[in-house]
Amino acid sequence: MGDGGMANTEQDPGGVIALARDLIRCPSVTPDDGCGIAALARVLEQIGFSVTLLPFGEGAARTPNLFARLGTGHPHLCFAGHTDVVPVGDDSAWAHDPFGGVIHDGVLFGRGACDMKGGIAAFVAAVRLYLEQAPRPQGSISLLITGDEEGPATNGTVRVLEWMAAEGQIPDFCLVGEPTNPAGMGEVIKIGRRGSLNAHIVVHGTQGHVAYPHRADNPVHRLLALLGELTAAPLDAGSEWFEASSLQVTSLDVGNTATNVIPARAEARLNIRFNDLHTGADLAGWIRTVATRHAPRADVGISISGESFLTEPGAPVEALRASVRAVTGHVPRLDTGGGTSDARFISRYCPVAEFGLVGASMHKTDEHVSLSDLKQLTAIYTGFLEKVMR
Amino acid sequence: MGDGGMANTEQDPGGVIALARDLIRCPSVTPDDGCGIAALARVLEQIGFSVTLLPFGEGAARTPNLFARLGTGHPHLCFAGHTDVVPVGDDSAWAHDPFGGVIHDGVLFGRGACDMKGGIAAFVAAVRLYLEQAPRPQGSISLLITGDEEGPATNGTVRVLEWMAAEGQIPDFCLVGEPTNPAGMGEVIKIGRRGSLNAHIVVHGTQGHVAYPHRADNPVHRLLALLGELTAAPLDAGSEWFEASSLQVTSLDVGNTATNVIPARAEARLNIRFNDLHTGADLAGWIRTVATRHAPRADVGISISGESFLTEPGAPVEALRASVRAVTGHVPRLDTGGGTSDARFISRYCPVAEFGLVGASMHKTDEHVSLSDLKQLTAIYTGFLEKVMR
Repeated sequence: MGDGGMANTEQDPGGVIALARDLIRCPSVTPDDGCGIAALARVLEQIGFSVTLLPFGEGAARTPNLFARLGTGHPHLCFAGHTDVVPVGDDSAWAHDPFGGVIHDGVLFGRGACDMKGGIAAFVAAVRLYLEQAPRPQGSISLLITGDEEGPATNGTVRVLEWMAAEGQIPDFCLVGEPTNPAGMGEVIKIGRRGSLNAHIVVHGTQGHVAYPHRADNPVHRLLALLGELTAAPLDAGSEWFEASSLQVTSLDVGNTATNVIPARAEARLNIRFNDLHTGADLAGWIRTVATRHAPRADVGISISGESFLTEPGAPVEALRASVRAVTGHVPRLDTGGGTSDARFISRYCPVAEFGLVGASMHKTDEHVSLSDLKQLTAIYTGFLEKVMR
Repeated sequence: MGDGGMANTEQDPGGVIALARDLIRCPSVTPDDGCGIAALARVLEQIGFSVTLLPFGEGAARTPNLFARLGTGHPHLCFAGHTDVVPVGDDSAWAHDPFGGVIHDGVLFGRGACDMKGGIAAFVAAVRLYLEQAPRPQGSISLLITGDEEGPATNGTVRVLEWMAAEGQIPDFCLVGEPTNPAGMGEVIKIGRRGSLNAHIVVHGTQGHVAYPHRADNPVHRLLALLGELTAAPLDAGSEWFEASSLQVTSLDVGNTATNVIPARAEARLNIRFNDLHTGADLAGWIRTVATRHAPRADVGISISGESFLTEPGAPVEALRASVRAVTGHVPRLDTGGGTSDARFISRYCPVAEFGLVGASMHKTDEHVSLSDLKQLTAIYTGFLEKVMR
């Protein structure tokens, strides 16, 4: 470790910049081999957290995770995040070493800079700054950090939450530090996410010659009618907090190269991102009903990778919003769009919201974060702690 | 050659059985290496035909063909057929040697037995029997025989017809000896065929993440709408002599295995079998218009493998029908269904009808023809010659 635990100046409030650089210098590509988790554990112990390392899984699936808590009282606020990062891709395309922690012209470069080592560093720095003013808070602060958010997410947040539930460590509110702002700090707080469902439909027919269609049963026409009905109308027009649900057919596969042959089989794959007007089970039932109407012999495989969830705006979300406005001057939009995050697992246990850095460069070459944004996020998190912990 | 030119008894009228066996014993899989054409040429010369061998094409595409004519007067009746046969497939699955010409229990087995060496043998036998009664006919009889009907058909009938046109040898009527009867002799005379069109449609979109469909352009949905319009209604309800046209989508191809990705490209292939209410050009224009409406950037490739054609029933067709009824007791249906044949090329030059053996075993293992059917077809062709040549 470098000076992550030491720096705390006006140029580096709470040590956010030093800690972000230290974390970036751990090449913790999914699954984090433990370097990111271990580096963070040392810093949290220095601050006074009780740290529990929670590796789950065996062999190649072994995932390092961490739960750290400061205090035992309520309110219990938890910050959730991940130290693992996506691969760098073409190393030579980067302007700076992706694991170098290089600062150039007020910008910190590196894989994980915004997604989300910078977010973790800002929260740790905010805890330091908050404790300077309130050394013995009534409530408690915890961190749930996984090393497998960008991967299968099997032995990460889900397993830690099960452990927390068994140990009586479920928080009153959880803040996820994902980069929620599309272009500038203060734009978006996520208070929910859409659900996601994948379906694979295989329609069986009877092969034959195109000149004698009455002797065959064309599975392509059955599939076209089936998908025509599924895509005929929008699923909904959106709800109070959600945009409209969206069904996208992502593949069609027959693979018949004989122009005079009606094939025996046709397949389709589709994905639905759905809001709180639906459940995965309702949509699965609808798809099966439509499939059976047009193709009684169809095989329909459905997997629901997440239900939609929503944290109705209340005191913690308003506190976060007020702190964002105080620091940035912007009133952040409360949003439920975009992809999935580990918040979908946390929502099963407690209210959860997400706010972090600007995500424009996430998963890309030259991922970066401006030092100014790191300082703003530290100030936002500090203000949030002050409002919710008193 | 065996006794093809010799036999002519009550058990083998006109030598039809002997000639069918001799032709089957030439393993003339497409493109006929010449053995079938050469065997037939010798028999026709014995009868008195002027035979012109017309090989077209070079190298592997070289195709043997034959034009033979007896007399120079009118009416000029032409019999068209092919000596080439489709491959035997799994040789060991055959009950009898596919090139053995084996007769078992009154049935002749072998590749080409019904499609269409048996038909050629019946016509040659009919000419022999007709000439016994009318040794010096006023009109003339010809045969157009190709060795490439089952293959690309590039250097076969098309090229021979061009030569015939250049030489002033276009007949007044042409009879094609394809096996037109589905199950029993006397069921069907074909007086036309549907046209056939193939289309390959490639829709281009913009790739993206399924969570942000507004930033992508899903080519699958454009293709579904496009095909939905093309298949929404029947093309027609049939016409006086034709069944309804039929559009069959034969393949859909995207090949996208990522469930969270909207693909950049989607393809479809379709075939239309169309009747005399349409032309290939009209249908191609319709497909392009619909494609452009739903997918302005689509690439649409169209090939028209044959226009529909019809020989309006008249004297020659009625003569054929009367002869079929006299021999079999059945009034044959005048039909235009089924696949394509070389009649589509001949129809450009003169009226053409098709009548031959029972096709149930064509292209299959243990292809066969009953000796009784061979004798019936010989009698039908003889009666037809008597009616049209006088």
